[in-house]
Amino acid sequence: MNRIRIGIYGYGNLGRGVLGALKQNPDMELAAVFSRRAESGLKIEGSFARLESVKKIDEYSDKIDVLLVCAGSANDLPDLSPRLAEKFCMVDSFDTHARMQEHFENVDRAAKKGDKLALIACGWDPGLFSLLRLYSLAFLPKGTTNSFWGRGISQGHSEAIRRIPGVRDARQYTLPIDSAIERARKEGATISPTQGHRRECFVVAEENADKARIEREIKAMPNYFAGYETSVHFIDENELLSEHAGYPHGGLVIRQGEHEGGEKSLLELRLRLESNPDFTASVLIAFARAVNRLYKRGQRGAISVFDLAPRELLPLSHEEIIKNLL
Amino acid sequence: MNRIRIGIYGYGNLGRGVLGALKQNPDMELAAVFSRRAESGLKIEGSFARLESVKKIDEYSDKIDVLLVCAGSANDLPDLSPRLAEKFCMVDSFDTHARMQEHFENVDRAAKKGDKLALIACGWDPGLFSLLRLYSLAFLPKGTTNSFWGRGISQGHSEAIRRIPGVRDARQYTLPIDSAIERARKEGATISPTQGHRRECFVVAEENADKARIEREIKAMPNYFAGYETSVHFIDENELLSEHAGYPHGGLVIRQGEHEGGEKSLLELRLRLESNPDFTASVLIAFARAVNRLYKRGQRGAISVFDLAPRELLPLSHEEIIKNLL
Repeated sequence: MNRIRIGIYGYGNLGRGVLGALKQNPDMELAAVFSRRAESGLKIEGSFARLESVKKIDEYSDKIDVLLVCAGSANDLPDLSPRLAEKFCMVDSFDTHARMQEHFENVDRAAKKGDKLALIACGWDPGLFSLLRLYSLAFLPKGTTNSFWGRGISQGHSEAIRRIPGVRDARQYTLPIDSAIERARKEGATISPTQGHRRECFVVAEENADKARIEREIKAMPNYFAGYETSVHFIDENELLSEHAGYPHGGLVIRQGEHEGGEKSLLELRLRLESNPDFTASVLIAFARAVNRLYKRGQRGAISVFDLAPRELLPLSHEEIIKNLL
Repeated sequence: MNRIRIGIYGYGNLGRGVLGALKQNPDMELAAVFSRRAESGLKIEGSFARLESVKKIDEYSDKIDVLLVCAGSANDLPDLSPRLAEKFCMVDSFDTHARMQEHFENVDRAAKKGDKLALIACGWDPGLFSLLRLYSLAFLPKGTTNSFWGRGISQGHSEAIRRIPGVRDARQYTLPIDSAIERARKEGATISPTQGHRRECFVVAEENADKARIEREIKAMPNYFAGYETSVHFIDENELLSEHAGYPHGGLVIRQGEHEGGEKSLLELRLRLESNPDFTASVLIAFARAVNRLYKRGQRGAISVFDLAPRELLPLSHEEIIKNLL
């Protein structure tokens, strides 16, 4: 059987995660890793595979079955994904919710033009959590769904703190508030993001910086921190590097529903990740398998995680799936 | 828009649950309820719909879009489902794991012969839990999956106790063992059913019955209780009817996985149901919608919950699904 040839676009944490995940999926093989930094001599750790310049990607159009786009969502993907979808079957992890439909349409147009298939918004949220939101709505039409995130590092919030004058480095953890989770479970309350989460910041300040001002500026930052219960801890650089080097994350999806007779049902998915990029990469890989299959059957354009049968994610026969999983 | 016409075969707890669930799904309507007990004058509570004799079901072949087979699994479905699948698009909740592939093939053959589409093994386990076992295996190929059931009434075990001489009535609860759940989470241990569950029995004995003998017979019963931590409580009939009248159930699916770098991920689905039949009915209804759609697109034969895209479960447009759930 021919193995599925995977291309990786972007060699950051997520791209590295995909390299690891490939080893757990023997029906796949690495075709190439592309990075903007290839020209500056960056190499792939512990691998004979070459890091290719993104400029050379067109040379790989017949050497890659599915390209995993492992670039930053907010800035890169809106332009990058449609451009790549015209030339490759691909999977991205676009997560800017407000622009989701627009992104879907842009990728759909490009993929159809290039006769390719592209899956957008893959990972755990959007992704696995989206699937649970859908299933639980379908199975409990009358009810309330709440999603909680954390404890986990938010890259966007960490970056926002780093832009404040006097800040040398920072990590921001998003944490769900236990009492809000209980209200979602027991009362089926609708919890807003600020009611459901608090933010914990670990900040390395420049020497002689005004820490009180930094703390005030963090807590007042609109969209990011204002309205949230926020705590700020000043620590030194060694502690930041030793205690906050990882990328843990996780969260919950909770749906509380009510049946016609008044009986309640509670459906809850919980995810706890020691490494957010490793798990996200592993989800991307499974969907790459499905994209490859559907493409071979003639499907074209853009799809989401909602648009394919779960069995397409696994390299198992119908009988094995019934025997081991049903 | 034409509403989906639902037939219900069997007017027990599950059939009643479907009647309730229909009210929460305005794109559907009740066509008929069939029962073996219709001829003895049984009526549908609080409804103008007639209870039809199962003997008249052939008269409904062009009046029903999807038939929900709400009969007992172990005894009835192996024969009943193939027979019905030849005449109706249908959904059943077959749950005898050892005979699943055989049942699938029998229903598949019948449905293809009758040019129909049938979904087997629907509900929460098999069903929702199966989906989670599949997704979590796909996303964490290296790891351990454990399923736990309870606290909930097991009909089969309650019935087994009732067959013991001297027993007037009984309810058996299956409960997961907390320490086993913790071992599944933290160590990724593989937990056997007897390691993971205990059984709690509430028994109403006949007057002058030998309670010590009854307790011994329960605990020694092979397949059902032998090997399990089992407790037996003798109570009077009033207490049984007042304290143990409901059908609560639930459970957990836990997968602990490990990535190539050694980082762990934990994925956990938890379900808590005040009414097992109400929730199961609601799951059946959602899959009936999907069966109706796929049938109209030309799909024939047998399928499982793994074989259809999640979006087919909801009466929402593609844009609404992306906006509200992705």
